[in-house]
Amino acid sequence: MRIGELSRRAGVPVPTTKYYLREGLLPAGERMHANQVSYADEHVQRLRLIRTMVEVGRFPIATVREVLGELDSGERDLDGLLGVLSRTIAAEQADRVRHSSDDTGLRAAQELTGRHGLPDDPAIPYLREIADVLTAFESLGQADLAARIADTYAEAAKQVAAVDIEAISGLDRENTAVAMITGTVLGEALFAALRRLAQAQLSIRTFSDRGDS
Amino acid sequence: MRIGELSRRAGVPVPTTKYYLREGLLPAGERMHANQVSYADEHVQRLRLIRTMVEVGRFPIATVREVLGELDSGERDLDGLLGVLSRTIAAEQADRVRHSSDDTGLRAAQELTGRHGLPDDPAIPYLREIADVLTAFESLGQADLAARIADTYAEAAKQVAAVDIEAISGLDRENTAVAMITGTVLGEALFAALRRLAQAQLSIRTFSDRGDS
Repeated sequence: MRIGELSRRAGVPVPTTKYYLREGLLPAGERMHANQVSYADEHVQRLRLIRTMVEVGRFPIATVREVLGELDSGERDLDGLLGVLSRTIAAEQADRVRHSSDDTGLRAAQELTGRHGLPDDPAIPYLREIADVLTAFESLGQADLAARIADTYAEAAKQVAAVDIEAISGLDRENTAVAMITGTVLGEALFAALRRLAQAQLSIRTFSDRGDS
Repeated sequence: MRIGELSRRAGVPVPTTKYYLREGLLPAGERMHANQVSYADEHVQRLRLIRTMVEVGRFPIATVREVLGELDSGERDLDGLLGVLSRTIAAEQADRVRHSSDDTGLRAAQELTGRHGLPDDPAIPYLREIADVLTAFESLGQADLAARIADTYAEAAKQVAAVDIEAISGLDRENTAVAMITGTVLGEALFAALRRLAQAQLSIRTFSDRGDS
């Protein structure tokens, strides 16, 4: 297929597709004539994957390149890919929350994760993230709110993570890698939408007849 | 306190604080002398709330204004605030996923939500969001992955939503409103960090000894 069809099928504008080609994120197509390059179904899949990371996951282009490099390396195990995905997401998250948590926040995070059998080593970036979020709740005067929701969140997160990992184990390497990227980026969007749908259903029941209390 | 201390305590740079003052998001301080304006603790709280919506929630300034307007209106019930929060998040999410789902995606979303006692009316924006995410999985060749995780996600989302609503009901109006904003924005970050911590714990067990399969 020509670049126009490739772009249309992946839902990416032609100039953006050309940019990904120039940046080497998308492999070059096969040159048929002086002015004609042909792309295959693999290009459509790859372009959709790039689009998911950029638009839904908001990964910087450098990270997309790193993730695709791990995906294509073929010779390594999946730790490299997991590592890149983890670092990217931790960095993006840290950038958003950016409340430097103090020892109190860190202790609260450790108590929470320890209580649910989750790792409580402060060297793990995700633990620091949890501490930052708890500190942010506290700084908004909402420490009680965090305390009321945190245990249910931890248990629900464990169920979700267990099915995440189970769903991608047993696939071959290529599929595991693509499933890992998809699950990381789209899984979060799916859970968030389901949570909000359930909230909307419950809040109509809870608040709609409270009036101006 | 002076604007420097206000900014420092809320973790917002002075020029940004001045911008929020000019935009009317932050009420003016009390003028003490010709060159001195004094701010109170309420300003710190308000500024932290603005910062959370802008930095963590990535709300556009116009939306922050609308949310704060609902918060300050005092005379309305909470539906207005819920409505603004819902529309904002739905719009931001739609902007990120932007896969126009077809009837197949919508039917898949309805089957999923119906199976779990969640609303399945296509007029609800969140249902369309779920359809879009399922369509995005499908377009990446990962429909099987979505099928394997979706039911667990729906049940976990219901648990999380139930504690979200329960935790903020019974508060007075002002606190319910602030808790709603905080829970909407920071609750998502908390769940995501917990999910990734649990994933990391499990994936080390599952993948670290697979080697280059």
